[in-house]
Amino acid sequence: MPLKPAVPASAIRVCLQQKPTPSYRLTASIFQAPHNASQTRQFRLFTRPPSSSQITTTKPTSSLFPTKKSARALSGAPLPQRRSPVLNFAYRTAAVLGTGVGFVGILVLAFFAYDATTYKESVNFGECQVSEYALSPRRGGPKNLPIAEVLIDDEDTEEKRHQKSKPKLVILGSGWGSVAMLKQLNPDDYHVTVISDKNYFLFTPMLPSATVGTLEMRSLVEPIRRILSKVNGHFLRAQAEDVEFSHKLVEVSQADANGNQVRFYVPYDKLVIAVGSVTNPHGVKGLENCHFLKDINDARKIRNQVMKNLELACLPTTSDTERKRLLSFVVSGGGPTGVEFAAELFDLLNEDLTKRFPKLLRNEISVHLIQSRGHILNTYDETLSKYAEDRFARDQIEVLTNSRVKEVKPDKIIFTQRGENGESLTKELPSGFCLWSTGVSQAEVCQRIAAKLGPIQSNQHALETDTHLRLNGTPLGDVYAIGDCSTVQNNVADHIITFVRGLAFKHGKDPETLELHFSDWRDVAADVKRRFPQAVAHLKRLDKLFSQFDKDQSGTLDFGELRELLKQIDSKLTSLPATAQRANQQGVYLAKKLNKLAHAAPGLRANDIRDGDLDEACYKAFEYTHLGSLAYVGNSAVFDLGNGRSLTGGLWAVYAWRSVYFAQSVGVRTRVLMAMDWLKRGLFGRDLMSF
Amino acid sequence: MPLKPAVPASAIRVCLQQKPTPSYRLTASIFQAPHNASQTRQFRLFTRPPSSSQITTTKPTSSLFPTKKSARALSGAPLPQRRSPVLNFAYRTAAVLGTGVGFVGILVLAFFAYDATTYKESVNFGECQVSEYALSPRRGGPKNLPIAEVLIDDEDTEEKRHQKSKPKLVILGSGWGSVAMLKQLNPDDYHVTVISDKNYFLFTPMLPSATVGTLEMRSLVEPIRRILSKVNGHFLRAQAEDVEFSHKLVEVSQADANGNQVRFYVPYDKLVIAVGSVTNPHGVKGLENCHFLKDINDARKIRNQVMKNLELACLPTTSDTERKRLLSFVVSGGGPTGVEFAAELFDLLNEDLTKRFPKLLRNEISVHLIQSRGHILNTYDETLSKYAEDRFARDQIEVLTNSRVKEVKPDKIIFTQRGENGESLTKELPSGFCLWSTGVSQAEVCQRIAAKLGPIQSNQHALETDTHLRLNGTPLGDVYAIGDCSTVQNNVADHIITFVRGLAFKHGKDPETLELHFSDWRDVAADVKRRFPQAVAHLKRLDKLFSQFDKDQSGTLDFGELRELLKQIDSKLTSLPATAQRANQQGVYLAKKLNKLAHAAPGLRANDIRDGDLDEACYKAFEYTHLGSLAYVGNSAVFDLGNGRSLTGGLWAVYAWRSVYFAQSVGVRTRVLMAMDWLKRGLFGRDLMSF
Repeated sequence: MPLKPAVPASAIRVCLQQKPTPSYRLTASIFQAPHNASQTRQFRLFTRPPSSSQITTTKPTSSLFPTKKSARALSGAPLPQRRSPVLNFAYRTAAVLGTGVGFVGILVLAFFAYDATTYKESVNFGECQVSEYALSPRRGGPKNLPIAEVLIDDEDTEEKRHQKSKPKLVILGSGWGSVAMLKQLNPDDYHVTVISDKNYFLFTPMLPSATVGTLEMRSLVEPIRRILSKVNGHFLRAQAEDVEFSHKLVEVSQADANGNQVRFYVPYDKLVIAVGSVTNPHGVKGLENCHFLKDINDARKIRNQVMKNLELACLPTTSDTERKRLLSFVVSGGGPTGVEFAAELFDLLNEDLTKRFPKLLRNEISVHLIQSRGHILNTYDETLSKYAEDRFARDQIEVLTNSRVKEVKPDKIIFTQRGENGESLTKELPSGFCLWSTGVSQAEVCQRIAAKLGPIQSNQHALETDTHLRLNGTPLGDVYAIGDCSTVQNNVADHIITFVRGLAFKHGKDPETLELHFSDWRDVAADVKRRFPQAVAHLKRLDKLFSQFDKDQSGTLDFGELRELLKQIDSKLTSLPATAQRANQQGVYLAKKLNKLAHAAPGLRANDIRDGDLDEACYKAFEYTHLGSLAYVGNSAVFDLGNGRSLTGGLWAVYAWRSVYFAQSVGVRTRVLMAMDWLKRGLFGRDLMSF
Repeated sequence: MPLKPAVPASAIRVCLQQKPTPSYRLTASIFQAPHNASQTRQFRLFTRPPSSSQITTTKPTSSLFPTKKSARALSGAPLPQRRSPVLNFAYRTAAVLGTGVGFVGILVLAFFAYDATTYKESVNFGECQVSEYALSPRRGGPKNLPIAEVLIDDEDTEEKRHQKSKPKLVILGSGWGSVAMLKQLNPDDYHVTVISDKNYFLFTPMLPSATVGTLEMRSLVEPIRRILSKVNGHFLRAQAEDVEFSHKLVEVSQADANGNQVRFYVPYDKLVIAVGSVTNPHGVKGLENCHFLKDINDARKIRNQVMKNLELACLPTTSDTERKRLLSFVVSGGGPTGVEFAAELFDLLNEDLTKRFPKLLRNEISVHLIQSRGHILNTYDETLSKYAEDRFARDQIEVLTNSRVKEVKPDKIIFTQRGENGESLTKELPSGFCLWSTGVSQAEVCQRIAAKLGPIQSNQHALETDTHLRLNGTPLGDVYAIGDCSTVQNNVADHIITFVRGLAFKHGKDPETLELHFSDWRDVAADVKRRFPQAVAHLKRLDKLFSQFDKDQSGTLDFGELRELLKQIDSKLTSLPATAQRANQQGVYLAKKLNKLAHAAPGLRANDIRDGDLDEACYKAFEYTHLGSLAYVGNSAVFDLGNGRSLTGGLWAVYAWRSVYFAQSVGVRTRVLMAMDWLKRGLFGRDLMSF
């Protein structure tokens, strides 16, 4: 077959005459394989010059050709259709939507496929070994109680069997300190037992949210056994009652099925006391008429009480005065818990109540916050206190500062308010609900332990530890105390003076006549810094301090001058706040130290440092780093970032506040649950139900 | 510029020589606009014959050309790259994944955008009108109690103001019957008030799932106010105590904030009694040692008790015998609730317990089901009972049939079992937990109402209504009763005999000597069918019945023969089951009738049918349609579809069982929540916590 040029020049000329400026591309099918149905037409195209109507324009395929159209003549291939931008957009949207929906569908299917594997069909559990001593424990100790030397799950798994020979680490409590420890501990170094009367960890900072149903209670708790499983630990639901330090036994109690109290001992090699604190009654009468907010059950009681009051207020038999009283909610305590509860309560009333309940209720509701200090959130930066107070004023939450509750009666609160001239006025506030969220005090078991240890535990509010978190007065390295139940002793002066005395005696000198040169002082300061990391900030300019306290300009510090200097530093060190943050840091610190000790101790013992200070040899002293505080104040949040830096804001701050806690939450489960709860709140609002 | 043919024949020949069979397409840029950077190169291509290397092949763009390659020569456009299938697949997967993730991201963003609008900033609620009579109601009625003629939210919205003049529809109870009614009622026809001591609707069929944490409690309940808002209704949380039928007043009571009982009247034009039933104690001693499963609080108590027993069983002081007792769970009652609870409990123990608790516990756990009949699920098809029993046998759930609990002691169950020879054996079962789920009995308020109405209410178990669901003995069209608290009187014989007597007297005949021809009988049967829809199935072959009961072959039925015939039909009609399904159907029926009545009644009254049977004139009698029953029996489910058809199955049946309830759930909120709960269970298992 003789071949002609595919496109005659005339055809091209037509194109050029039509549109001279843009470039043209010609697409021509030169040869068509004979197995195609359209071959006849193709061949015809080859032998005849295309008419001008056959020269069609196509979209340029590349940015190399920035022209709009190109010629296309001899191909029978369907041309790319030029669609309108609207159609294109619609097509692309549909594609993205389809893919997206398909993707979600695949996720759902994947979940179902996974879910189907979670239904356990087998009921064969195999043999189960339990030591005889676990089933009928031997008796002993000062009170001749059963001693839980072996537990019934000590043989359950290979890992647990392996742990039987490891040192026994007993942790009392299941709060922030314990859980921070458990998350950080190496799984293989200790035989871990947690003893607590709660079998869950509670994410306390979000507790106010649970009282009004912004979050569900289950989203704030994590079973302690789930956390323990990482270290193959054991859990006993019981209450610690006392510790026999010389026998290394914890005395615990639990009510049996008939309600009779049963006591037994749990032996330990290392004991961590992290039992937290209890609410401080401040000697106020009628606290039985108050709600507290320490535990998850408290949140449920509060929710039910709020709902009960709202429902009673709807009844036709409820008088006007009674309705106002029922709807008067009083919060005593202007700390973060009190403030956040007031804010959450306001949200409930403002966002959800009005939708479903009679309007009259919303108009008669009042929220009051009684604070003993001059400002709410008084531990925060002052601008934040001010912001929160302004916010509350706008939200019609009455803030009563400089006020102290004297008595809580079932239907009213009696409180004294300091007037502007310092005079004390006694006032009454009718109330249908009172939340008591002021301060903390020592748990009973801690009081018992402190009394046992004698005058070395002189603090009325918490167990004193050294900077290695070891409980003062107990055998070194046996017992630690962390969290709200403990306080780190900052007695730099006492400690250093003992140290200096030892130094003096070693040099055969009388400490009273000791003269410290600057180089000696530098050594002493280094020792102080190592033992009291908190003091570092106050020991920066050693030369300045030296010259400042060397009052007689002798070039040396005598004993009296040194004592003055250290006392001044002491006075600058504050005790650590009783917060989740501190407990968490202490738990992490202690776990890291115990991890190190487990590996270093055998070596150190072999080197005869048996009775030396193993903790100090292995790990640095505890140092608290304040990461800032935050609080929710009703559709806005405040952040105290420390050092005078602070942030306040509306909705974005609320989301940020949530993000912080979302990130700090204990695990994937609680995070997913919290996210679901926020989704629920957004979509359906809070549930106005009580049961 | 003289134009040459774009592609010289020689170039094309090269192509043909190289690959003769496939078709080639030549893409050549004829003319390049001079504003392009690549113009020089383009022009060079035009004037020189392309070398063979410049003739490249491209992928065919259309299926019209099933060839593999085509020639492409003179274009400088980048050629589509031929990728390997693996790369292509990877690319497409990445594209789908990216789009999917983007889509989910957009959904999340959209949620946040929506969520941001749900935070109400304004605290201005405007004025609120309340009638004086709502704040201090007038007194009256037989007991001179306050009468709630006007409610405090009657003026809240435009719709509510409009409803003030409408007939007052008062509904007692917030269960299946009430909610089915509320969902079906027209919003504008009645002034609706619901009175219940629970401010939520509980999705009862899923309650056993909530006891072990498969579902959360909040997922099974819907605030009644939310459901009421559709009809702009009102809610009073109070307990119905009595009804003054002649004064059209319901007497309700509620404990005020101090616990004192306050009583008042609520006036009605139409009253619906739907208060449900209470658990039947069957005269058994020691039921205070049992758990029940009627309300959502029961589920929480059960969950806590199960957890408490598990925790106690872990303690070293718990003896072996005591541990076995604590882990012996007894369910009394082999109906759907008992069976599903046993199944859910087994799931908890089998799927979740072993993961976190000592193995010993799982080995010593026992679940027992005590059933008075010969089979469990005895109202279901027999194959289903058998399937469930086999399943339980495999799951090591002990089923004790033909057994009756005599006494429940704190630590054991005493029951009698009928032996094979009919002898009664008294047995003991140590138990740490007992669920009582046998039968229902009448609520107190219903007993009071029945006593008030006298002998016409002779049923000991429920309030009797006619087939229009009107409470027998009350003014026609005033009071209805639906759900578990009621039973539809099936007394066909009594009713028809009265009817026939009337017919006879009208014709001046003595009813005793009445002779019914076949055509008369057909009329009577039609009347029976209309009034007693349940009898339809038994009145299909009228001719057969006629000849069968025309014992003297007289060609007519005399009065005695007719009575026999009707009695036989009566005996075949069973009373309706006390199920959610029946309550739901009755609620829907009643709402539809009330909707019709609201529009028809004024017209009918105008036409002087004032004291006639408005209900019958407006709407058909209630007819129950059994849609089947289903039950979960532990990783499998059984479906009784009625008429002997049944289904049993494993995991697919569980998903089907869930789907049925998912579809029947009360609203979007509960559905989303249930889905979230199942997601939670799949991902994280059940929470082994108690609080």
